Amino acid sequence: MAHKPYDPGDPTSVGLVKLKHYTFDSLTLESGEVFGPVTIAYETYGRLNDEKTNGILIFHALTGDAHAAGYHTPQDQDPGWWDDMIGPGKAFDTNKYFVICTNIIGGCQGSSGPSSIDPATGRPYAMRFPIVTIRDMVAAQKKLIDSMGIEKLFAMAGGSFGGMQLLQFAADYPDMMELNILLAATAAVDPREIAFDCVARNAIMNDPNWNNGDYYDKPEQPVIGLRTARMIGLIQYFSEEYMRERYGRDFQKKEQPDFSWDIEFSI
Amino acid sequence: MAHKPYDPGDPTSVGLVKLKHYTFDSLTLESGEVFGPVTIAYETYGRLNDEKTNGILIFHALTGDAHAAGYHTPQDQDPGWWDDMIGPGKAFDTNKYFVICTNIIGGCQGSSGPSSIDPATGRPYAMRFPIVTIRDMVAAQKKLIDSMGIEKLFAMAGGSFGGMQLLQFAADYPDMMELNILLAATAAVDPREIAFDCVARNAIMNDPNWNNGDYYDKPEQPVIGLRTARMIGLIQYFSEEYMRERYGRDFQKKEQPDFSWDIEFSI
Repeated sequence: MAHKPYDPGDPTSVGLVKLKHYTFDSLTLESGEVFGPVTIAYETYGRLNDEKTNGILIFHALTGDAHAAGYHTPQDQDPGWWDDMIGPGKAFDTNKYFVICTNIIGGCQGSSGPSSIDPATGRPYAMRFPIVTIRDMVAAQKKLIDSMGIEKLFAMAGGSFGGMQLLQFAADYPDMMELNILLAATAAVDPREIAFDCVARNAIMNDPNWNNGDYYDKPEQPVIGLRTARMIGLIQYFSEEYMRERYGRDFQKKEQPDFSWDIEFSI
Repeated sequence: MAHKPYDPGDPTSVGLVKLKHYTFDSLTLESGEVFGPVTIAYETYGRLNDEKTNGILIFHALTGDAHAAGYHTPQDQDPGWWDDMIGPGKAFDTNKYFVICTNIIGGCQGSSGPSSIDPATGRPYAMRFPIVTIRDMVAAQKKLIDSMGIEKLFAMAGGSFGGMQLLQFAADYPDMMELNILLAATAAVDPREIAFDCVARNAIMNDPNWNNGDYYDKPEQPVIGLRTARMIGLIQYFSEEYMRERYGRDFQKKEQPDFSWDIEFSI
């Protein structure tokens, strides 16, 4: 995809933005465990109005982060992941709305997660980080919204794994928003998805560089297992119909198979 | 599953059987390569009639072998893979029919494959074994059938990957059989299947014990990559509907999740 570098003269961009952090003492997780301190990384675009009624909470998809719009530095070659949608005059119009995007807890892009330093040991939590659910993620987001003095969001929006967070947030705090914009999401994944998640997890945890999760200070990381997991994930994002239409059984840049171990098919 | 040990008094069993081998000089593969010598492992049950009109060719599924019925030794705890179907009085009645099952070339269960010794080097072919297609597999089976003097089979039967062989055999040699019994098969896998095959192949070839295929004399084999590949395969064998009905979102032998890294879900 074409890059879209920082342009200080672009009137539709939110421009330079900063990743912020909010830390609170503890969270009682769905498992019953009380975990803390908890840090949640977030960005905001636009201005919260005096009545605090123009907040829009954006949820990121799997492997996403809080950097939904704008640029962190003038050298950035690409804006945040939903920059097409967030900015002056855009769908989430920052002239009118105060847009908030957080990194999920467990997400390791600034929020507390397995790569965060455990204050008890001075080393990354790794596998000592508790298992968190989507309910726990939205409970942390709720604490951030509360800390801003926002009693009711104007809207929430999220797709895929972000849409699953939205559904959980709406179920747990049904009076906290006017509008929900749900994209490409489900309330519950089906057993095949659960099974493929298990394969992906196994691929990572069987990587010889996994080291029971303590790979942070090692020269080699479990990238091969992660690559397999990511391939499984990507295939799951497409419907069979879409793959048939887009790729079919075409060969990769050729008319005939070449009977080699290279990639033969377009898909 | 319950074992079904050898029982010399069972009148519905073909009893003790032997794996046989047929070797021919060479095969011109679909890729154009001329490969040889080629050995095909097979078993037969029942007796070929004088007119040679009662032959039934059985095709095995992925990871299968030529041992479709009976027992290799009196100590065997389980019969061949389709013993329920093949025997005196059974669906493929060996009192009437001469049933043949071969191991596909490339299958490494007695037929020429990557684990076979390359006469040129005295070591397993490994990655030097040519890439063979389903058309090549059935061409080898055709040579075996020809060697038996059978001009026309009474029937062919195969499921899954065995059904794909059956379709190819029927397409390539349409006058060589009276009946085709096709089970759970397709003429062409769809792009999602191609993609998952690619992930499975990658999982094996990225295993640190893969060693570019030369793992035969090594203490460690690429079993972890193979395990991931096999999990991907097994999930693909079930329809979404079946998985929903059989497993749903039930937990594994419990009512509630236990928020651990153990297997939580029934699937």
